[in-house]
Amino acid sequence: MDLKPTKPLSGFIELLPTQQRCFDFCAARMLNVLKTSGFSMLDLPAIERAEVLTDKDNWDEIETQMFLFQKGDTKMGLRYDGTVGLSRYVAGHLNDLVFPFRASQFSKRYRGERAQRGRYREFYQMDMDIMGVNSLSTNYDAEIISVIQRTLNSVSEFIGENEVRIGSRPFWDALFDYLEMNEEQKKQVFVLIDKKDKMGDADFAEGLRDALNDENKENQIKSVFINGYSDFLNKSDKLDLAISELNEFMKILELFGVKNAVIDLSIARGLAYYTGLVFEFKSLKYPELGTVAGGGRYADLAEKFSKTKIIGVGAAIGFSRIFVALMEAGAIDLSQFETPVDVAVLCMGKENLSYAVSVLNMLRDASVASVAYLDADKKFKNQIEYSDKINAKYSVIIGEDEAKNQVVTLKNMLSGEQQTVSVAEVIKLVLGA
Amino acid sequence: MDLKPTKPLSGFIELLPTQQRCFDFCAARMLNVLKTSGFSMLDLPAIERAEVLTDKDNWDEIETQMFLFQKGDTKMGLRYDGTVGLSRYVAGHLNDLVFPFRASQFSKRYRGERAQRGRYREFYQMDMDIMGVNSLSTNYDAEIISVIQRTLNSVSEFIGENEVRIGSRPFWDALFDYLEMNEEQKKQVFVLIDKKDKMGDADFAEGLRDALNDENKENQIKSVFINGYSDFLNKSDKLDLAISELNEFMKILELFGVKNAVIDLSIARGLAYYTGLVFEFKSLKYPELGTVAGGGRYADLAEKFSKTKIIGVGAAIGFSRIFVALMEAGAIDLSQFETPVDVAVLCMGKENLSYAVSVLNMLRDASVASVAYLDADKKFKNQIEYSDKINAKYSVIIGEDEAKNQVVTLKNMLSGEQQTVSVAEVIKLVLGA
Repeated sequence: MDLKPTKPLSGFIELLPTQQRCFDFCAARMLNVLKTSGFSMLDLPAIERAEVLTDKDNWDEIETQMFLFQKGDTKMGLRYDGTVGLSRYVAGHLNDLVFPFRASQFSKRYRGERAQRGRYREFYQMDMDIMGVNSLSTNYDAEIISVIQRTLNSVSEFIGENEVRIGSRPFWDALFDYLEMNEEQKKQVFVLIDKKDKMGDADFAEGLRDALNDENKENQIKSVFINGYSDFLNKSDKLDLAISELNEFMKILELFGVKNAVIDLSIARGLAYYTGLVFEFKSLKYPELGTVAGGGRYADLAEKFSKTKIIGVGAAIGFSRIFVALMEAGAIDLSQFETPVDVAVLCMGKENLSYAVSVLNMLRDASVASVAYLDADKKFKNQIEYSDKINAKYSVIIGEDEAKNQVVTLKNMLSGEQQTVSVAEVIKLVLGA
Repeated sequence: MDLKPTKPLSGFIELLPTQQRCFDFCAARMLNVLKTSGFSMLDLPAIERAEVLTDKDNWDEIETQMFLFQKGDTKMGLRYDGTVGLSRYVAGHLNDLVFPFRASQFSKRYRGERAQRGRYREFYQMDMDIMGVNSLSTNYDAEIISVIQRTLNSVSEFIGENEVRIGSRPFWDALFDYLEMNEEQKKQVFVLIDKKDKMGDADFAEGLRDALNDENKENQIKSVFINGYSDFLNKSDKLDLAISELNEFMKILELFGVKNAVIDLSIARGLAYYTGLVFEFKSLKYPELGTVAGGGRYADLAEKFSKTKIIGVGAAIGFSRIFVALMEAGAIDLSQFETPVDVAVLCMGKENLSYAVSVLNMLRDASVASVAYLDADKKFKNQIEYSDKINAKYSVIIGEDEAKNQVVTLKNMLSGEQQTVSVAEVIKLVLGA
């Protein structure tokens, strides 16, 4: 019989135990920040109705982006982001939730598209959202940014310091109105702004020419990226409002202690969802990672699910992508995650098994991370090799003498030192370390 | 525009924040036992190649049991248990892992079948497995049972005490050989034994008659459930071996301190995988939950993936099913999970926002779980109502006087007591509690 393949499907991440321990360590640190910040963890279904996932009904087109299946008459698919499920959940539980509602999700997302380098078909994102009914102060936008920075800082030994760049949808809306652009032009130019970083100045200028064909307008838009937005004060009420909101916002970010926050009006976050301020985080140590977290404000998060207006500000951290990239770049020292246990109990001979198991039980009862080598017939050489290979800090060796005297031989696997001690002393030593 | 549905698909679990906190609390307690017991957490892809998931190639038949999709020429589907992925993973990483290898998984499983009461299409199971190459002492079977009992005991305030019933495949194999049954008869009778509990004595007897049509053989099989296995000592070497192994095993369970372990030869665990001892756990407090955990030994876990013989003993805890059943039965007092935060910072007036945010920062820096009500224009009544609704333990109220004097008014939300204190005192009070 042919053997089945042992590799996971392309685009799927599979970690070794040491890598997984590091992954879990980072996730726990980051989730702890969200807990301390009063965010409620949600764990929503990975499968949603197709109509919940998308407004499109062209099955073939959707299928190129998502994992879909049909059961009976019901079309469904795997979640591709955290926002769709959250919108449905919040709309369905308006009376069960207290607003402003802080929610976080740490879950796998699925993309049906072809796998490419650095793009996965299954990956974790860490989402955080604050939602209000009918109103929500932009102070919460500042809080979200503060919480993301705290979350990233909780693993700063790996990812370094970070910066956040703030963009403003309302500024562009106001400028487009001021420049008397039509709807088609607004859309075209916004797409150009969103892609500006990737396309270079010449292509950007050419794009503006194609869209506007008006040198004055083109120059005014270009000037935003040269002189900033200050030139546009006192041009229109809408522009003044957008600019003063942005200035005010930067002050609130300062109150929150956010570091390295800069205004960058090229931050647009694509076309979906967002209606207010938008933001993107980069690692200052590893700028080549690109955007490590991003988000913004949406005026009506759940409009497709509820007549109640739910205003939200939310963000997602690209957890899996960052983790794998840092690991591949050698930025993560995995050596500290190589030790899953403190103590390996080695048992020399079946006749001592009873005592060895009682020692293992005592260690585990005392919350000492411990395993035992229970093939008691195996030679000492095999057993100590096992202890060495799993990187146990200590070996507890049990033979005839130890069993008789109700003690153990404790071997420090790093120094090689050995001593005869009681189990209570082992526990004290390990937990005290 | 019609609104989209807000209910999750049938067969999918969706918890409210308080329920989710309890779920996460139980999971963390249980996973901590596995960590202390030296199990490596694995997080494998939820999607596998169809050929990995099943040996069947009748797509229509498989589709009634699984969630499947096709991308290009590749057929794939969602995992339905933890064992298939583990087998593939271990076979693919033989040289990266140290054996005996202790692995655990806590992940969602997917069943494509129609949803029924108490059966879900997406649910968590907690798996634990110990694997050895070419050999693995049955002492590890005892360890697995000990670890499951410890895991269940870590949430005993909800689920109560548990018992474990031990069955033996080798005993039945030996008995069938001794009774000179043919292969077809062996299979038929084993199915009957597996279903005995559900079918009742009369149907069981009738089934034996249909399969064997030999009163002596039928009676000998029935006698196992009446007199136990002791009558079958000294009948054949194979029977003696199976019986002495079982007796020996019960002694080792005792060494491990396993409570309420009984031999029950009607435990068969279906037809798949298992080749050695098998076992099932029940809650003594809630026997109506049925089997809460079960598992056994397999002689060659990864035979479809590797020529290397990997012997395993493994088990799974039906985490979601147990949790939802206990919750629905009112067995879980959720009141202790209603408080997500210790402190709600309430800010009376925009002019005090700066101080309020600095207080929030100090609390979060000190790991005090805290939120702030940042719509500073809202009335005190609204703000204190918010604090009350989210079940904050304390409100920290900040107005003009507090900001001026760099203190806060601390209100105990349970007693209603108020006092003026410094932020340092708030931290001390909350963390000291």
